[in-house]
Formats: sequence, structure tokens, C-alpha cells
Amino acid sequence: MKDLKCEITIDEMGNIFAVRPGRRKDVPATFIGSHLDTQPTGGRYDGILGVLSGVESLKRMDEMGLETEGGVGVVNWTNEEGARFPVSMIASGVWAECIPLSKAHNLKEVPTVASLPTAASAPETMKSALEKINYLGDVPCSYKTTPMAAHFELHIEQGPHLVSAGQRVGVVTAVQAYRWFRLKIIGRDTHTGTTAFEHRADALYAFALMMVRAREVAAAKGCLASVGIIEVAPGSVNTVPGQVSFSLDIRGPETALVAEVERELRSDFDKIAATEGAGIGKPCRVEWTLDFDSPAVKFHEDCIDCVQQSAHAVVADAPVADTKALVRPIMSGAGHDSVFTSKRVPTSMIFVPCKDGLSHHPEEFSSADDCATGASVILQAVVRYDRK
Amino acid sequence: MKDLKCEITIDEMGNIFAVRPGRRKDVPATFIGSHLDTQPTGGRYDGILGVLSGVESLKRMDEMGLETEGGVGVVNWTNEEGARFPVSMIASGVWAECIPLSKAHNLKEVPTVASLPTAASAPETMKSALEKINYLGDVPCSYKTTPMAAHFELHIEQGPHLVSAGQRVGVVTAVQAYRWFRLKIIGRDTHTGTTAFEHRADALYAFALMMVRAREVAAAKGCLASVGIIEVAPGSVNTVPGQVSFSLDIRGPETALVAEVERELRSDFDKIAATEGAGIGKPCRVEWTLDFDSPAVKFHEDCIDCVQQSAHAVVADAPVADTKALVRPIMSGAGHDSVFTSKRVPTSMIFVPCKDGLSHHPEEFSSADDCATGASVILQAVVRYDRK
Ligand SMILES: NC(=O)NCCC(=O)O
Ligand SMILES: NC(=O)NCCC(=O)O
Repeated sequence: MKDLKCEITIDEMGNIFAVRPGRRKDVPATFIGSHLDTQPTGGRYDGILGVLSGVESLKRMDEMGLETEGGVGVVNWTNEEGARFPVSMIASGVWAECIPLSKAHNLKEVPTVASLPTAASAPETMKSALEKINYLGDVPCSYKTTPMAAHFELHIEQGPHLVSAGQRVGVVTAVQAYRWFRLKIIGRDTHTGTTAFEHRADALYAFALMMVRAREVAAAKGCLASVGIIEVAPGSVNTVPGQVSFSLDIRGPETALVAEVERELRSDFDKIAATEGAGIGKPCRVEWTLDFDSPAVKFHEDCIDCVQQSAHAVVADAPVADTKALVRPIMSGAGHDSVFTSKRVPTSMIFVPCKDGLSHHPEEFSSADDCATGASVILQAVVRYDRK
Repeated sequence: MKDLKCEITIDEMGNIFAVRPGRRKDVPATFIGSHLDTQPTGGRYDGILGVLSGVESLKRMDEMGLETEGGVGVVNWTNEEGARFPVSMIASGVWAECIPLSKAHNLKEVPTVASLPTAASAPETMKSALEKINYLGDVPCSYKTTPMAAHFELHIEQGPHLVSAGQRVGVVTAVQAYRWFRLKIIGRDTHTGTTAFEHRADALYAFALMMVRAREVAAAKGCLASVGIIEVAPGSVNTVPGQVSFSLDIRGPETALVAEVERELRSDFDKIAATEGAGIGKPCRVEWTLDFDSPAVKFHEDCIDCVQQSAHAVVADAPVADTKALVRPIMSGAGHDSVFTSKRVPTSMIFVPCKDGLSHHPEEFSSADDCATGASVILQAVVRYDRK
């Protein structure tokens, strides 16, 4: 981006912005954005493709000597995954002023991170981690300080719909709702060899029942419920665990559906907890903490139109009778930084197919052709939007 | 023990032996033994009472100027709990030549130990831990090098039978069987937000079903099955875990029953694993490793008789009509070092009541009276055995 003489800013969340100036200085740039962070066992496309498509778009515009009205920018958002610091899309959330900076800065890394410190030293916070890598910028993280005309994002679908239908481009119109919780089950440590089942308040057994129940309830409502992190104390072969902490990720196509699943699980988990340990009059109890709430989102019609027109144009040469059928509207199952940019500026996204719909896995794959198609669509969409 | 002029030896498993000599030098000493190690959230009685009762017995014998035929010894066995190094009774197992020294020395600490090293440094082994605290002795750990005439052990019951029946002493005649396994479930990491349940091979969901099933199967056969340790990878809120490792502790009053539970669970766990992920043709799979196998044990009639006579003598003054009813034969639910000494020398144990039958918990409690009763019984039992 420096070679292309872009203006580069790094804000206090470590977000990196690069802008290729347009003819007019009085309007904000249109951005292509995504993220470079990944999962402990993530692949090489989730997020990375989006940022690289922005860089490539700016290079291509330079090669073509293309002038735009407003500037065109690329943004790399920090910690979109929420893998190391367990709130997803946190830096675009701060930019949108939906998440307080202090909450983001003080967020602690999850204990399962490979760089796990010894019990004696404190876990890293987002702020200390940014300082360590020299990416704690001094520009305020806000849509007011770093404004955008619009935000476009290219991403692999991470799901199976495009690939199984043989389609080339997804015009993303919406993102499903999700909520992240941390739950704690408190039971009673006791001996595994001398304590009859009816005398136990086994927090891990209660967890097992809860996880089974979570899938049942979510499935019945067309939603998802998943546990990715679990920690058990005291952690000894022959002690029944008296404490379990775990993450719960609930998703669904509508905000209200996610709320319904949550409501039902709160009640069911209480019942499960009340049963385990009832025999000793000291039943388990369960505590919920909401860490993150992302209601369902609908993207902006203007942006969706630009993407759709560009998609049809890019696939027009494909050797099939009906090239329009290669493009489809789609809802995103995953969250993306576009969720937060959409709260402040016109936003939409482009999906390209990925192998087996697999993501958050080292085998995540999207062919060079599919990546190039997506990059062509996003470049055209940005230019179309600029000319509106 | 040094003050009492005992002969002290420390063997290569860190077992500490102290012997008060008897009249005869040509016969081995009768030992009172237990352990001083505990659980991450253990109490102040499990094991500790047994060692202290030995120390107290030797002091008492000195005060009384009591001479014995053979010597009388106290032994503190290393790592009886298997909490930090996850094989219980390992040091008495090496002494009995039932567990190879090299296996014991190379055993790694569990990752949940508070002193968890960073991922970069290796976990401590039993040998390195003994070296660090200067308890890697040079005396071979074997019943041949440190012989015993017999082994007696005083312990809190750790279960509810004595306390709920208002009884004072348990004459332990047997120990139930148990097996410890490490299991690994291999599934597939994938995105929690974009992966339908039928496209998942969720190792943690499979675990939850297995844990629920384990209790069902064990309960139906009058056995126990417990999980105390679980680790999940990769450990991210929005990645379906592709790998789960956990401990499984199966116990039952007969060796054959434990084997039956194991057989049934091996088959059921395979079925659960085969179902989770079947939709993508890459089902979960589950691998078992047997870490420890302790068949059911019956103690020695001579030792049981000495304990029973001593128990009746000690409670004879109690203000109840039938003092004999204060003493009962009992089977131990937990394992003890006496399990391994019983393979080589006449052995038996004494139980005293503990509050709520609770153990492996900070609230573990046995009254001073009950502790004193147990100590009196073990001292008498040893003297009776010596005089046989
Ligand atoms: N695209 C993506 O994987 N985002 C991470 C946030 C989420 O869990 O949906
Ligand atoms: N007594 C006791 O807690 N022993 C530990 C070994 C076992 O798990 O039974």
C-alpha cells in the first residue's frame, strides 16, 4: 500500500486503513475490508481473501490508471474471529461505536491459546497484545475519525450452498443473528470411587446433559447451538468435577429465534442443574454471562445492487446457458466486520464457493478461479458504487 | 521419626520408611502406612490421617516403653492419589513390583495441574519432580529390598456408610475393582455458525452423549463411571471442536463387572462416534488407552482378625448396649496403597467415619474422637499381629 502511495492509518484497535485518493477530497473513501486474523486451526481464506482482494483491487486500479470520484480504501480489521480474544468483530464494533473501547482493550485472551502463560502471570489483554506487536495506534477508533462512504467485503461462503449448487457468486443480503455466552456450572467436588451417582453434584455430567439438550432445542427451531471451549475444575481423574465453565454460541436466521432458544435453554439448564445434586440437597447451579450479541442484519439495497450487477457482468462469459443462475442471493451464517460497518454506512458482501463448505479448518479451500471471480466482482462493485 | 531413633530410608520412588526396631533383627517390621499427597481440592484427612496415626503409634509405643518381636514401621507412599501423576497408588505398585519403575518414573503430570508449564516447556515427569524436591532416593523400590511382615492402614471411609449408620469403625475386608482410561475422540474442526448439525463431526457433542451413556450403563450394573479431566481442541468459541481427550474411571464391586461396563461402553461409544459425522462420511472415532487396572482385592484373614478384635476392644467402653454393632465389615470404594501391599504381604485396613461421606473436597472432615479411635485400633492391631 505504501508502494501505491496510499495514506495509511492505524487506529487504537490496531485496525489498518490504506486509502488511494480520488478526485474529490471532500467525500470519504469507499472501503474494501475484511480481516487477517484466523482460528487456532483456521485456513488460508477466511478473512485473508477479503483483505488481499482489496489490495489487489487497488493495484489493478493503479495499473489501469483508473480515477475515482471518492477515494478507495482497504481495511484490515483486528480480531474479527474472536478466537484469541473471545468477542468476534470487536474492532469494527468499536469503530461503529457499538462496543466501548475500554471493554475491547481490557478483553482477556482465552486460556486455551497456545501462548498460554503460566498460572502465575496474567493472561494477555487485547491492549497489551496490540502494544507488544506495535499496533496500538493513536488515531481514535471511530467511524467519525475514519469515515467511509461504503464498505464492501469479499469472503468465502464457509458453508455448502454455493459449492453444492455449482454456483459462482453469492450476493449476501443478510447475516443471521448470534449470541455468545460464557456459562459456569457449580456443583461439588467429591470422590469418584466412593460417591454414588445419587450423592453427586457432578458439574461435568450436568454439562453433558446441557449440551445434548442445546442441540435438541436449537434444531427444533432451525437454529444452531455450539460449545467450543470447556474448562473443568479441579481436573483430577478421581475427583468428580465441582466446576465447569464453557462457551455457548447460539445462532439463527432471526434475532427472535435466537432469543427463543436462549429462553428455553435457560429454563432447561436450570432444571438439569436442579436435578444433579438434588439427592444431597445441594444441587448444581448454572450462571450465564452474555459476552456478545449480534442481532440479524440486512445489508444496504444500493450496495446489494452494485454487487449483483457486477456479479452478473463477471460471470457473463461462463460457458452455460443461463449465467444468471450462477449468481444467487444468500444469507451469511457467520458474522463479519460488515455487520458493524452496516450500522454506520451502506454495506454489503460477496461470497465465493469453498470446498465442502468447510471453514475454521486447515483444509479450507477456494480455487484460484473462484478467488479471482470474487476479486473482479468487488472491484466492479466499488467502481459502480463510486459512480452512483 | 529421627527423634524416636528410627531407621529411615527413602527409595527411588520417594517412599519414606521409618522403622522402630523390635527384639528380633531377623524378621521384617510390621508397617502402618498411607500417603501424604492429596487432591487439587482435597481435604486434611485422606491419607494424612493414616500416616499421622503411624507416627503417633510409634511415639505412643515409645512412651509406654513397649517392646515388640519384630520392628514396627511407618511408611509414607508417594502419589497415592494419582492426582498430579495420573496413576493412583503408583509407588506402592512399584514396591510390589506390579508397576515397572521406568513407567512410574516417566509418567507425566496432568496438564490441569496449577503449575502448568507454558506450551514451550515439557510437563514434569514423576522422576524430575522427585529430583526437584530431593526425594529421589537410591534404595531400590521393591518389597525385596524393603520387606514387610504385614501392612495396616487407617483411613477415613470417604463414603457415607459408617456415618449414616452411626458406626465407629469399619473393618475393611476388600477393595472394589477399578480401571482408568484416557480416551480421545477425533472429529472435524469446523465453523459453528455455518455448519448444520448434520454436517458436523463434533467431538465434544459425541463426548456429551458418551458421558450420559456411561452413567446409564454403569448404574444398571451397580458400578460407577466418572470423568474428571477433559481437554478440547482447538478451543475457540466459534470452532466446533475436532478433538476431545478425557479420563474415564470405571469402578465396581467385582472385577468382572468393571470389565462388563468397559465392554458395553466400548461398543456404545463406537456407535455414538459413528453417528456423529456420518452425514459427511467422516464420522468421529474414539480411541481408548488403559492407564491403570486395579482388580478387586480381598484382604488377609489374619490382619482382618487383628483389626476386628482391636476394634471391639477399643469401642468396648462406649455407652451403648451393643458395642459390637459399632464395628462393621466394609468394602472400600476407593483404592489404597494397601491394595498393592496385599499382593506381597498380609494386609488390611481400618475405616473411620467422615462427615457426609465427603472426600476429595476441602470440607472433608473426621472428628478428633473418630481419628483417635482409628489410631487406637491400628496400634492394637499391629501389636496383636506382632504377638501372633
Ligand atoms: N467469518 C467468520 O468466521 N467470522 C467469525 C465470527 C463468527 O463466528 O461468525
Ligand atoms: N483413597 C483415595 O482417595 N485413593 C485415591 C485412589 C482412588 O482413586 O481410589
